[in-house]
Amino acid sequence: MIEEGDRVLLTGEKREYFVRAGEGQLSTDLGVLDLSALVGAAPGDTVATHKDVRFTVLIPRPTDFFTHARRSGAPMLPKDIGMVIAYTGMNRRDEVLDAGTGSGIAAIYFGNIAARVVTCEVRPEFARLAEKNIENAGLANVEVRACDVLEADGSYDVVHLDMGIAAAHVEHACSLVRPGGYFASYTPFLEQTFTVQDAAQHLFREVHTYECMERELVRSGRGTRPSTRVGHSGYITIARK
Amino acid sequence: MIEEGDRVLLTGEKREYFVRAGEGQLSTDLGVLDLSALVGAAPGDTVATHKDVRFTVLIPRPTDFFTHARRSGAPMLPKDIGMVIAYTGMNRRDEVLDAGTGSGIAAIYFGNIAARVVTCEVRPEFARLAEKNIENAGLANVEVRACDVLEADGSYDVVHLDMGIAAAHVEHACSLVRPGGYFASYTPFLEQTFTVQDAAQHLFREVHTYECMERELVRSGRGTRPSTRVGHSGYITIARK
Amino acid sequence: MIEEGDRVLLTGEKREYFVRAGEGQLSTDLGVLDLSALVGAAPGDTVATHKDVRFTVLIPRPTDFFTHARRSGAPMLPKDIGMVIAYTGMNRRDEVLDAGTGSGIAAIYFGNIAARVVTCEVRPEFARLAEKNIENAGLANVEVRACDVLEADGSYDVVHLDMGIAAAHVEHACSLVRPGGYFASYTPFLEQTFTVQDAAQHLFREVHTYECMERELVRSGRGTRPSTRVGHSGYITIARK
Amino acid sequence: MIEEGDRVLLTGEKREYFVRAGEGQLSTDLGVLDLSALVGAAPGDTVATHKDVRFTVLIPRPTDFFTHARRSGAPMLPKDIGMVIAYTGMNRRDEVLDAGTGSGIAAIYFGNIAARVVTCEVRPEFARLAEKNIENAGLANVEVRACDVLEADGSYDVVHLDMGIAAAHVEHACSLVRPGGYFASYTPFLEQTFTVQDAAQHLFREVHTYECMERELVRSGRGTRPSTRVGHSGYITIARK
Repeated sequence: MIEEGDRVLLTGEKREYFVRAGEGQLSTDLGVLDLSALVGAAPGDTVATHKDVRFTVLIPRPTDFFTHARRSGAPMLPKDIGMVIAYTGMNRRDEVLDAGTGSGIAAIYFGNIAARVVTCEVRPEFARLAEKNIENAGLANVEVRACDVLEADGSYDVVHLDMGIAAAHVEHACSLVRPGGYFASYTPFLEQTFTVQDAAQHLFREVHTYECMERELVRSGRGTRPSTRVGHSGYITIARK
Repeated sequence: MIEEGDRVLLTGEKREYFVRAGEGQLSTDLGVLDLSALVGAAPGDTVATHKDVRFTVLIPRPTDFFTHARRSGAPMLPKDIGMVIAYTGMNRRDEVLDAGTGSGIAAIYFGNIAARVVTCEVRPEFARLAEKNIENAGLANVEVRACDVLEADGSYDVVHLDMGIAAAHVEHACSLVRPGGYFASYTPFLEQTFTVQDAAQHLFREVHTYECMERELVRSGRGTRPSTRVGHSGYITIARK
Repeated sequence: MIEEGDRVLLTGEKREYFVRAGEGQLSTDLGVLDLSALVGAAPGDTVATHKDVRFTVLIPRPTDFFTHARRSGAPMLPKDIGMVIAYTGMNRRDEVLDAGTGSGIAAIYFGNIAARVVTCEVRPEFARLAEKNIENAGLANVEVRACDVLEADGSYDVVHLDMGIAAAHVEHACSLVRPGGYFASYTPFLEQTFTVQDAAQHLFREVHTYECMERELVRSGRGTRPSTRVGHSGYITIARK
Repeated sequence: MIEEGDRVLLTGEKREYFVRAGEGQLSTDLGVLDLSALVGAAPGDTVATHKDVRFTVLIPRPTDFFTHARRSGAPMLPKDIGMVIAYTGMNRRDEVLDAGTGSGIAAIYFGNIAARVVTCEVRPEFARLAEKNIENAGLANVEVRACDVLEADGSYDVVHLDMGIAAAHVEHACSLVRPGGYFASYTPFLEQTFTVQDAAQHLFREVHTYECMERELVRSGRGTRPSTRVGHSGYITIARK
């Protein structure tokens, strides 16, 4: 049951709106919709605009924040976030330290899985935007800190860095990882990747760097073929303590 | 604090042992270790064999079950499990239906994230093996059912199929997905992938098929280069209701 | 020594012009150049516009026709043409049959290597355009025929098809390949590729289908990384008689 | 018509033999074959062993030397040789300098296309083996020099290096390339590739580095899927003067 203040996804007519249930109106080219009508609705219910066009009410999932969150830069792609989750075995008992929050997309994915996420972002304006996005995602277990990850302390099951990275970051991250826990980093350039690999080599039991080239397989009336788009985003390094 | 009956990972001397704390002994080429000594230990502690070789005590993570679980066939790779998790936005509030349990590897990853997982496996002997693996992983929220997924009912946030697949499976899966939820399938061959794509096209709001080619970037004394191994495993289709 | 009528490439000032030596003028934003001045020049010489901007005189290579030939559609990419050449071992003693001429790019590459190339194009206007491009490339050993490849006869060392393809084309092509010679096809879609594979399987001694995913490695001030562009173009099937 | 001393490929019964027409015998598990019977045969003819098993007589193509030449190390793969040929527009008028001959495979491909090939190999025993392979391939236009490529002089349309490479090699190679001609290098490791890119950047008009990931598409009774084998071999840098 949707409550006042909940974030809601409205879909239909090839449109998608990301709104908050409660006071106020949504104006669309297909009519105006009263947002208080969403309070009490259940996922799958439909609501109508004043022109009687109906939209389906859905509870947003983490994937919707990838699409609808306000961005401060290019976020990590789901494929790369998925690799970090799978290769670290991130789970509901985990405490996770994330750094290079950006718009908070990775932190939102992690916060939907782990018990607790602390995410560090040195640029205060990015930290504030991420905080908004995380609040919109309804995550009370994710804390944004406007600080350098080198200032972070404590101990974590997974430490994930997506930032301009130096050997010192890898070393400090290692000191925060619990025994048996994982370090993960995302680096778009080879030079940074080498820096991470070289620093991690002597600190961790096992270090692997992966690249995941994702292609869509497109099926149309003309036939089926891999998309010619994309491929590379960056390198994921996974190290275990 | 490790309790009697807990699964424990012992590491050191380039060896790794997956044991249960409590009565009994572990015999290694570096001496015999009393497993009752593990009870009360904390992750990161060390324990010694009778030859005084020390191993570090760790709590296993989901990734360890990928390595140490008994297998009934080739399990999905972490990269593919990660894509399913990320593209469905799997999270701690989710109820997940999984089918084609196999040795239970994917169910273990999902069970470490989601609130509840039901996993269907038609071959009773595979179901039994998966049940063992899941019990070893300490997951009380994963239920193995020795049945055809076509017999499953209820409603789920994510339905994931990794099995010989026909249009009927996609249709039935769709009927079990909650509004706004996701269907995901893993298919090693193109023909099956086409079957899934064609069946899903008319049932779901959005359908995408991805292939994730993973390569390791290997850094050695001779230089750095992508591994020449691997690449393809199968196709992941993600459809949203 | 460049002669009257020869095609010439003029390069410099980040510009590139593809011209014919002899009567006439080339107008550029850097001044007008007298094309008769090219007659008698040697590759590497420079010629000046009336504003005294100098361009270097070069003899075009097959690669220049890929860039400068007039196109009737998307031509095969060099990486795919290269695979056909290498996997068939195309050489200066070969007689080659090519079909699906398009703008003639592949025929130009082949004609620069083989003793003789016959290329079939069913659409007469495409055949005429290809003929122009081939004449510009100075190739007297390439013959364009405005016909269906099913009408072709004779025997060839290599038969290459880049066209809407059916089993009958593969069968006819096979009948034209000399013992020990090669069949090659380029198919952008999987369905066509399957058609070729299935037809070729029973006709040839050995059949292999390859996909070549090409990425550029881009080195800039920010670092080195694979380009995020491209990847797939089509499938190359190579069959030996 | 096959003459005394010609290299011949015998195929059939899932076997392949690489022999020389003339005196002598070939012993196989299917009987003994008199090699003098090959003299005067035409490609496609069959010859019989004393057990009356018949093999087909074929003239070897460059691809056969990739399979049958004696090797001194891992040769460049056809996909990479094809990229060098296509991206340099190698053709029958070209003079080509090749260095890092190895077993001579690339030189054999190039020699089957270009007017003349000079190939430099510093290790005398490799140079001798390559010479044998090239002689077997019947190429009178390929000259093997047992020397360092830094000692090479003259001017060439294409200079191709597949060897442990330093900036000095790229600089010297550039001095040997004719105006409008191409430099190409094959480097298995990223560090060497960076060396080539950095050295070439200031010497040539245009520099591109490519990676070609090749996969086979395997069609069997179980279905069609990309092979899980291979992918990476090395980086091809192409620079134009």
